[in-house]
Amino acid sequence: MSLREEALEMHRVNKGKLEVNTKVGVKTVKDLSLAYSPGVAEPCKEIHKDEAAVYDYTIKGNSVAVISNGTAVLGLGNIGAKASLPVIEGKAVLFKSFAGVDAFPICLDTTNIDQFVETVKMLEPTFGGVNLEDIAAPACFEIEKRLKAELNIPVFHDDQHGTAIVTAAGLVNALKLVKKSMGSIKVVINGAGSAGIAIVNLLSRFGVNEIILCDSKGVIYDGREYGMNAIKNEVAAYTNPNHEKGTLADVLKNADVFIGVSVANVVTKEMVRSMNRDAIIFAMANPNPEIMVDEAIEAGARVVGTGRSDLPNQINNVLAFPGIFRGALDVRALDINEKMKEAAVFAIASLISEQELTENYIIPAPFDERVAPAVAAAVSKAAVDSGVSLKTGKPALI
Amino acid sequence: MSLREEALEMHRVNKGKLEVNTKVGVKTVKDLSLAYSPGVAEPCKEIHKDEAAVYDYTIKGNSVAVISNGTAVLGLGNIGAKASLPVIEGKAVLFKSFAGVDAFPICLDTTNIDQFVETVKMLEPTFGGVNLEDIAAPACFEIEKRLKAELNIPVFHDDQHGTAIVTAAGLVNALKLVKKSMGSIKVVINGAGSAGIAIVNLLSRFGVNEIILCDSKGVIYDGREYGMNAIKNEVAAYTNPNHEKGTLADVLKNADVFIGVSVANVVTKEMVRSMNRDAIIFAMANPNPEIMVDEAIEAGARVVGTGRSDLPNQINNVLAFPGIFRGALDVRALDINEKMKEAAVFAIASLISEQELTENYIIPAPFDERVAPAVAAAVSKAAVDSGVSLKTGKPALI
Repeated sequence: MSLREEALEMHRVNKGKLEVNTKVGVKTVKDLSLAYSPGVAEPCKEIHKDEAAVYDYTIKGNSVAVISNGTAVLGLGNIGAKASLPVIEGKAVLFKSFAGVDAFPICLDTTNIDQFVETVKMLEPTFGGVNLEDIAAPACFEIEKRLKAELNIPVFHDDQHGTAIVTAAGLVNALKLVKKSMGSIKVVINGAGSAGIAIVNLLSRFGVNEIILCDSKGVIYDGREYGMNAIKNEVAAYTNPNHEKGTLADVLKNADVFIGVSVANVVTKEMVRSMNRDAIIFAMANPNPEIMVDEAIEAGARVVGTGRSDLPNQINNVLAFPGIFRGALDVRALDINEKMKEAAVFAIASLISEQELTENYIIPAPFDERVAPAVAAAVSKAAVDSGVSLKTGKPALI
Repeated sequence: MSLREEALEMHRVNKGKLEVNTKVGVKTVKDLSLAYSPGVAEPCKEIHKDEAAVYDYTIKGNSVAVISNGTAVLGLGNIGAKASLPVIEGKAVLFKSFAGVDAFPICLDTTNIDQFVETVKMLEPTFGGVNLEDIAAPACFEIEKRLKAELNIPVFHDDQHGTAIVTAAGLVNALKLVKKSMGSIKVVINGAGSAGIAIVNLLSRFGVNEIILCDSKGVIYDGREYGMNAIKNEVAAYTNPNHEKGTLADVLKNADVFIGVSVANVVTKEMVRSMNRDAIIFAMANPNPEIMVDEAIEAGARVVGTGRSDLPNQINNVLAFPGIFRGALDVRALDINEKMKEAAVFAIASLISEQELTENYIIPAPFDERVAPAVAAAVSKAAVDSGVSLKTGKPALI
């Protein structure tokens, strides 16, 4: 059976991948009087008196809405809300499997930003956090920004920040190996969608001075007059300090790092040869990378990572989002802020000691069970330290 | 420990009552490639080709959103979305426990009808049905009407129709006992909220000609100039055929049936004495009925039902909604229409044979395991027969 047939059968036989279960038995009149009327009125009254009690008596404290409108699904593009449901349900499966979070998929039937934002605001009472997923750029930037400002629960667009965090973790370790520093490297990023923009921002915070972002039309620079949008203009203003123009190939000359969040086969061996010694290549296009690993190595790259599970150094978001939300929920964080993201980066990277570090092992494997608890602990601490935790006292990790 | 303390502890220890679980293991790279990328793209593509496939490959076919805005919660009134969450979560527990439905609570932070309706419309892709709950009248009527018109999944306001269905089932059996017919009885209903209005409508469909609805201001009649609203005006036009006025006590004279969905202690022994012989009393105010059972019996009532689990003839919605949604989901019904509601009434009533029928046993007990499957089968059949089922061929009951 092909992977296609196997995947279809698995989904069909199980009728999806999630179920909602009860944690309390309802077998007797007594059970019913506690779980429902009249006993249930008691927690209602407590929450009515003090809103914060909703975290004590309901699912809110452990629940995350995984919300999409199906406009940018995997490699499939804008396939709509219903067709995105298998992916969004899959994401909820990962939340539960990797971090014990009760995540529920919510696929919204709208491409209108206002409608999207208003709907999520209405949903806030039930959920402890919102993970945005597979929403097309540039709408995703405005949606996330507005929701972060208007909700009192953490909002996180995983396609942006999850990817950026795991990429940064890989880069932290790759740089140790090649003995270069964030402040001294030239980084070229191909792909100006949600992931590319978030990587630019996060690496800037990590002290990378020379970042050049490219899109399908070539190098992005301040003042470029074609193919721009609000977010690209914003990014152009603080990247590409030498105002380089031209193609991806042009700017890859003397670059130290290439990060691809774009499409297959846009990087050639020749382009890799034009990079600095000990080049680092994260070719994360799915399912086929910007350049194949063996070609990149032949052309002189020292460290190569991809999005693929069958190759070394898989840059996989599952290393980040489960632990991040676990950590945020554990301390009732109001936000997932930059300090918490940075903490996640170092938590992931530091699971590999300098002794263990090799060209083929710069990032933990997706099923490394140390990852989610380590990320959760670091994120909880960063939330408390940065003052966005509602939980007083020492965070109690689940 | 008091019931109050026990209920609070149960909710606190479990941190709510629901969890979201995965039905598929994610332990290996292979598992991940089926449940998530890249395998998950296959069901996405199938649904993108043919929307109906969403029922084959996702949770949609077995999921119901239990949606409230917390404006009319149990006896607590308008306590808001967050404080309603324990009840709405409890309802989801009942859906799973009684009928295997994956129900998820959605408490919406709005009292605006347009916002409520628009939000639920956005949520449609994920869910196979919508159960509205604890929404104040008269907003609940417009909300349900608009959602029924605009959604392609069944919408059911349980406080209206669940209560009406179980009441009607009890009445069907009580009338057998006293040998009266729907067409010949005078029914007085006290309480013009969601339940009262729905009971009026359903009993009209069952052929009751003389129904008189009362509210806190007395008898409702066509042309009453105080305390009316759109729905009361509508009901006034086709009830109270003799244009009676006055108080509840006035119209209870020579009534055959009293149905209370109001408040405690509004019916006296004297009022019961003024009713026809073999009076039927459903005193469903919670937690204390309109008249206590022993008093009603002393005053000559023949059959008395209440909402209480510690008394005979408990009129409990849990007899209806789990099986109704089970039946609707099993045949992918587009609606829960009048035929399906009628089928549910007879399915519940007919579980008690004429030989078993007594004054203290007119309705099955909440934990009677025959109820949900019987209701589901009858509702599925009615959906198919009335042409609102999307499932071709013989309905396959789960």
